[in-house]
Amino acid sequence: MNKGNLFAALPETFDEETFEQLAGRGEVRIERIVSRGHRSPHEGWYDQDRPEWVALLAGEARLRFDDGGTLMLRPGDYVDIPAHCRHRVEWTAPDTETIWLAVHY
Amino acid sequence: MNKGNLFAALPETFDEETFEQLAGRGEVRIERIVSRGHRSPHEGWYDQDRPEWVALLAGEARLRFDDGGTLMLRPGDYVDIPAHCRHRVEWTAPDTETIWLAVHY
Repeated sequence: MNKGNLFAALPETFDEETFEQLAGRGEVRIERIVSRGHRSPHEGWYDQDRPEWVALLAGEARLRFDDGGTLMLRPGDYVDIPAHCRHRVEWTAPDTETIWLAVHY
Repeated sequence: MNKGNLFAALPETFDEETFEQLAGRGEVRIERIVSRGHRSPHEGWYDQDRPEWVALLAGEARLRFDDGGTLMLRPGDYVDIPAHCRHRVEWTAPDTETIWLAVHY
């Protein structure tokens, strides 16, 4: 039985954002993402075929949506992003780990 | 876009465990469960047709499995429970809220 702790086993370096699949089946994917000051590339948006439910568990981040809206996320905040809702990670806290839980469903 | 905070809007009374669906599609369900001293009925097990990934976000709980094993869960701990892996919630902290995030997938 796969188990662990969402706040443990953090990456040792933060050159790249770290994606780790925790569980999944078919096209459903549960993953932990650890960021530190990372953001989406300046150009382009995430534009996904499936909805993504995402919760911020530690740190802080700001999402930007293609319609111009932004959303600050602090620990415990979650948002359900519909399929093809174009979005990007505009900012994550530079001085601490930002831990996300994402469910692509 | 449905959003909220996993630690906010807790139930005002704890006579019953509270289940709240946060997102879902088809047979996939993402839900928050809030317990306070609740446990599964003394008789019987959860025996589910689909796997359940569950994380404990606050509080403390102990799961028991049909094979005799137990698993203590503290904040951040997660476990991926296979379909038909019979289990029960044997104990949750009596003096504080236990907040779970469950993904049935």
